[in-house]
Amino acid sequence: MTGTLDNDILIAGWGHSRFGKLPDQTLESLVVDVATQALESAGLEPRDVDAVFLAHFNAGMWPLGFASSLVLQMSPDLFGVPATRVENACASGSAAVHQGITALLAGTARRVLVVGAEKMTHAPASAVGAGLLSADYESAGQPSTSGFAGLFAQVALAYEHRYGPVGDVLGDIAAKSHRNAMRNPDAHLRKDLGQEFCRTVSERNPLVAGPLRRTDCSPVSDGAAAVVLSRGPLPAAAVPPARITGFAQANDFLPATRRDPIAFAATELAWRRALQAAGVSLWDLDFAEVHDCFTIAELILYEVMGLADRGKGRLAVEEGLVEPDGRLPINVSGGLKSKGHPVGATGVSQHVLAAMQLSGTAGDMQLASARRGAVINMGGLAVANHVTLLESCT
Amino acid sequence: MTGTLDNDILIAGWGHSRFGKLPDQTLESLVVDVATQALESAGLEPRDVDAVFLAHFNAGMWPLGFASSLVLQMSPDLFGVPATRVENACASGSAAVHQGITALLAGTARRVLVVGAEKMTHAPASAVGAGLLSADYESAGQPSTSGFAGLFAQVALAYEHRYGPVGDVLGDIAAKSHRNAMRNPDAHLRKDLGQEFCRTVSERNPLVAGPLRRTDCSPVSDGAAAVVLSRGPLPAAAVPPARITGFAQANDFLPATRRDPIAFAATELAWRRALQAAGVSLWDLDFAEVHDCFTIAELILYEVMGLADRGKGRLAVEEGLVEPDGRLPINVSGGLKSKGHPVGATGVSQHVLAAMQLSGTAGDMQLASARRGAVINMGGLAVANHVTLLESCT
Repeated sequence: MTGTLDNDILIAGWGHSRFGKLPDQTLESLVVDVATQALESAGLEPRDVDAVFLAHFNAGMWPLGFASSLVLQMSPDLFGVPATRVENACASGSAAVHQGITALLAGTARRVLVVGAEKMTHAPASAVGAGLLSADYESAGQPSTSGFAGLFAQVALAYEHRYGPVGDVLGDIAAKSHRNAMRNPDAHLRKDLGQEFCRTVSERNPLVAGPLRRTDCSPVSDGAAAVVLSRGPLPAAAVPPARITGFAQANDFLPATRRDPIAFAATELAWRRALQAAGVSLWDLDFAEVHDCFTIAELILYEVMGLADRGKGRLAVEEGLVEPDGRLPINVSGGLKSKGHPVGATGVSQHVLAAMQLSGTAGDMQLASARRGAVINMGGLAVANHVTLLESCT
Repeated sequence: MTGTLDNDILIAGWGHSRFGKLPDQTLESLVVDVATQALESAGLEPRDVDAVFLAHFNAGMWPLGFASSLVLQMSPDLFGVPATRVENACASGSAAVHQGITALLAGTARRVLVVGAEKMTHAPASAVGAGLLSADYESAGQPSTSGFAGLFAQVALAYEHRYGPVGDVLGDIAAKSHRNAMRNPDAHLRKDLGQEFCRTVSERNPLVAGPLRRTDCSPVSDGAAAVVLSRGPLPAAAVPPARITGFAQANDFLPATRRDPIAFAATELAWRRALQAAGVSLWDLDFAEVHDCFTIAELILYEVMGLADRGKGRLAVEEGLVEPDGRLPINVSGGLKSKGHPVGATGVSQHVLAAMQLSGTAGDMQLASARRGAVINMGGLAVANHVTLLESCT
């Protein structure tokens, strides 16, 4: 799915819950809250919505296995609105956004409500672990002690095997993420842990799997996010819109034996397709929200994006490129790592954060210059890869 | 999602597994088999596929929770093809077909492969029961002895409460379904049980829940089906295509208290929208494949479609309208009831069966006249409702 877009596919409103441990929320209350926020910010009534897409992974973490119509709980006026659940593991959110864009392009809808949500922290650790591991071809249904961290630990070890010791860069990426999350009021982990803490194995920052410390891993979070996609501007919107200029998806094979674990080959393909669709190059961008489920993933994504050569991703950190005041700030929101990673919500949240930057409404996170941004969202070990390019309308 | 279509959205090829107990098949082998069949019948190579949609319910019945890329196991040439899972409970199959149509209309794809699959019979009855019940808002995660049959038993009781005893019509619908399935080589239950057997409670046909006998319920089945959707005809196709002339979706609220259990109000809305989109009326149709998960559902769908007034659905049976030689044959394939109901596969299978009729390739099931047909597929108790209208290209 690749699209070069004319100038009128907009993110015209959005909603975002706090990410974290939300014991008083249910999947339904999260969905309804962010959907309500998104319509309010877009200046729409429920009856104005032509279609709904719900991004939700679930995989045994929540009892309801048929959640698309939860969005209709927002209003009696939503009777009859088409609602469909979209799932691509941790990229479910962007998959739903891309289905929404497709519906606008098809002309089957003019205003689409996309909601992403996951409720995780109420579930026993074993259920969360099994749910997340069900996204892996080899591990699904198998016992595991190290969960998805164990899989990304193998990625880190493969990276070191090919390019030599990774040094302090993973700790530095974690420290950047924690620092950035201090300015995001919705982030799960708002604690500036500092480089030394993140670089060092300690009782409070133990090794979780292979070379990955606790600070290298995104947390288990509850949360939801929503966007209103529209064809053309909405006159009553409370926020300036952000324009979607290109999007692309590329899937890789599920079996680990059929993928180079550190190439993220289909992520790179989606990235190139999206840049081409939008007619921009890397250095035209002012920021990106990328899929840092683990710090090693963010490091490799620097290389996928072309911020550094293969094996040299650490230079992007060492040269300060990826800091909020650098040439291409990455994960100013704190990313999955510190913002939190409620699976189905993540990709939608990335689009909300990008739209906030581009509309100048990102509050303490606001970058000085934010004309063009990118979202990179991946499901599994770079298996389902979604990229969206956006620009400011102002 | 409602679309009036120009003349070039086609089902250009298809594949269908046997439905039933398939102990030697896995979810992956089912997916790959029908995808391979579909491309062969469309005369396409894997590299010709622009996008893939997988319909799959799962809900704990199969370990892999991230199945979209299973379709890529068909061929190394599928690297990079976008693949997305779509879920709307028992309507997942039609939801995926509708996403495929939308991608064609959007111009983001010219050839879409839609696969629906479910593997159920290997799982313990408790896992299947819990998985299916997870599609119900009130019952999800709750213990139950009667499963989804218990929910449709309540529908049957509500129907009798409003309109009086339903009499023999449910048994007659079951008997028709079994009779029709004799001519479908892929059907799960190929046994002409006869009216007397289906009408009568017996040791071999016990009550399952409320007034519903075993013969009123679709079986638990394994199976898969696939279609190739194309913009315009495919020159190397091995089968004549079928044209999609309209489609619509309408969702209802999840809580039972917010729905009249026998109105199927959103099904009726989707039905009317689809007829309007296609510019046809009921009596323009030559057949329909409708969602008979339980015989009471088929009875109510007669009324939703307008084959009979509300409360008078039995007349459609008594007057012979719905028989293969009647004015509007319903479920010539045997329907979910006797063909089988592998949840994610069902909606795609309905589209395959319709395309076979319209292309004159339905073998022993072939109707004398089959110029226009309809598919009605619903998820939950008429919660997610998808309707597609199709016509012959010959």
